[in-house]
Amino acid sequence: MVVSHPTDARPAPPLQVEHWLNTPRPISLQDLRGRVVALHAFQMLCPGCVAHGLPQAARMHEMFPASQLAVIGLHTVFEHHEVMQPRVALEAFIHEYRLAFPIGIDKPDPRGGGVPLTMQSLGLRGTPSLILLDKRGRIRLHHFGRSDDLSVGALIGQLIAEPDPDAAPGCDEDGCRLPDAMTTP
Amino acid sequence: MVVSHPTDARPAPPLQVEHWLNTPRPISLQDLRGRVVALHAFQMLCPGCVAHGLPQAARMHEMFPASQLAVIGLHTVFEHHEVMQPRVALEAFIHEYRLAFPIGIDKPDPRGGGVPLTMQSLGLRGTPSLILLDKRGRIRLHHFGRSDDLSVGALIGQLIAEPDPDAAPGCDEDGCRLPDAMTTP
Amino acid sequence: MVVSHPTDARPAPPLQVEHWLNTPRPISLQDLRGRVVALHAFQMLCPGCVAHGLPQAARMHEMFPASQLAVIGLHTVFEHHEVMQPRVALEAFIHEYRLAFPIGIDKPDPRGGGVPLTMQSLGLRGTPSLILLDKRGRIRLHHFGRSDDLSVGALIGQLIAEPDPDAAPGCDEDGCRLPDAMTTP
Amino acid sequence: MVVSHPTDARPAPPLQVEHWLNTPRPISLQDLRGRVVALHAFQMLCPGCVAHGLPQAARMHEMFPASQLAVIGLHTVFEHHEVMQPRVALEAFIHEYRLAFPIGIDKPDPRGGGVPLTMQSLGLRGTPSLILLDKRGRIRLHHFGRSDDLSVGALIGQLIAEPDPDAAPGCDEDGCRLPDAMTTP
Repeated sequence: MVVSHPTDARPAPPLQVEHWLNTPRPISLQDLRGRVVALHAFQMLCPGCVAHGLPQAARMHEMFPASQLAVIGLHTVFEHHEVMQPRVALEAFIHEYRLAFPIGIDKPDPRGGGVPLTMQSLGLRGTPSLILLDKRGRIRLHHFGRSDDLSVGALIGQLIAEPDPDAAPGCDEDGCRLPDAMTTP
Repeated sequence: MVVSHPTDARPAPPLQVEHWLNTPRPISLQDLRGRVVALHAFQMLCPGCVAHGLPQAARMHEMFPASQLAVIGLHTVFEHHEVMQPRVALEAFIHEYRLAFPIGIDKPDPRGGGVPLTMQSLGLRGTPSLILLDKRGRIRLHHFGRSDDLSVGALIGQLIAEPDPDAAPGCDEDGCRLPDAMTTP
Repeated sequence: MVVSHPTDARPAPPLQVEHWLNTPRPISLQDLRGRVVALHAFQMLCPGCVAHGLPQAARMHEMFPASQLAVIGLHTVFEHHEVMQPRVALEAFIHEYRLAFPIGIDKPDPRGGGVPLTMQSLGLRGTPSLILLDKRGRIRLHHFGRSDDLSVGALIGQLIAEPDPDAAPGCDEDGCRLPDAMTTP
Repeated sequence: MVVSHPTDARPAPPLQVEHWLNTPRPISLQDLRGRVVALHAFQMLCPGCVAHGLPQAARMHEMFPASQLAVIGLHTVFEHHEVMQPRVALEAFIHEYRLAFPIGIDKPDPRGGGVPLTMQSLGLRGTPSLILLDKRGRIRLHHFGRSDDLSVGALIGQLIAEPDPDAAPGCDEDGCRLPDAMTTP
């Protein structure tokens, strides 16, 4: 697992999504600032995604409060396009596997080539891939293949524990917040 | 598991297959007389098939000599037809999951209704289903859902041990055979 | 797995057991003629026995009718004798792991040396070991290490299907039996 | 899982250990201040400990740097004392299961009663139990039974991310430290 120190972490590029499922409106990473984001890139015919990646995503989605962690699937089809690209195929898959988190269909490259646009801009090596973003939207984990629950859990816990620099001290609908420097546990 | 005694077992109806994959020529149950047959009915978007049924079929195919057990897959699409029915979809699935045994696509019912013809004639309740045929082509196991390796293995072992009534005493390319009554171990 | 053809199989040597647990009276292999026997050799501090061998034995004991398969454990202590040899240790282990089949404690070698007597006479290489005996008491499987459910199930099924030469035609409490030559399914 | 907020967390009572294994010298919680501590209470004849608790402890020990997380086993024998209490029994168990982290034998209650002293002072309900201490030695998780890797990982990650109030700003052998208020990532 490639874990980045905050000072080295680069900001995640914007998602380029053709169509969103399991969400009433499109999602932008910008809107998720202040929360940790787990981005699961998968293909519906990828055995490792079906056996490991997607079940892990589903457990994350059940286990963490949405206010702390946003779980997002990204269908990055780079092979068997004619089978997996139709939206109806992914819809049937999501239905049968009871996936409940928002899933975006990565936008095909208009220049052709088979690798969709977000997959390119994130520099993914294949599926499954797990990307963790911190509260500032920086890429802190970039992992291809099966990832271990204990390690991934620890990194999510650490990212959740990091202060959110954009959460201004003061009061909002959540309550009244102390400046970070005063919240040392 | 519904296991039939030989005296109650009914002959399996013929397979009605639209197209065969992983085999150079169509397979008929008639041709498999003298061998035990494991027929795995599945759908590519059925989670229980992907997690349990197909891996069990693959292990059977690796573990038993083809001369003793014929493993056959049957793609019985009864939902999401538009996604799973195209042959190219099943071909991509077979490729990604590295399935090596012959797989037939069950023939759609020309009268409509969604349940394909072999699935109807076998009276399957859903997928995954495992049907075991004895050497005479009679249905000895008819099971819907996950099936236990130890139990299924025991039934296969028993069926393999049963004498083949059509293997006439005398000599052929395999060698020279005693009458069954003389082969008590 | 070393599977023996009936014509090569040697008879199992008698069990040499110091003490029996989970059975009201001592068990001799002679008394089990006519049934298939699964003999599981284990040690309570052997990780492979605890994780694989004993759970498999317990499933066999639940799954097959006692009239067809006798499941027997054999505690063959060849290391850490001071910890595992006391009967009270094995009793606590059997209680905590809810083992319900008969278990014999292999008799220590009075000449010393650490390897108990039945383990010697069976020529076991270590634990877990699984020995399958046919209805005549001959060793048909002699396996050290983890054994696969599907393979072991198939061999048990085959051994159960073999005719019992000592089951004389005629009537007893089970019913009235045809001669074997007339029972071809 | 009972997770405590820092403000409610009580300090862990001192370990009362009869004998330590896998460590050249006794361990006190006081010495571990500044590190997160995972305390795994187990019994060698407890099936849930052998199947889940101890493998989880071993993975934690492998996965996290010792400078961040201290993994400690506590053998809390409250049943079958005559079998599990002798130190030689635990030594054989540790050897066979290849456990590499420090393990303390909880001190028996001199007044009798069967429940050892640390188990009493920690208020454990049974085995396996997992206790997580933060860098100040306060109990932040108190869990009986199987615990999920993703959840436990997240809590460990959070505890590791919390600032260590005793790590005074300034220089030592690790390097030179900024005051916490200046280390917001």
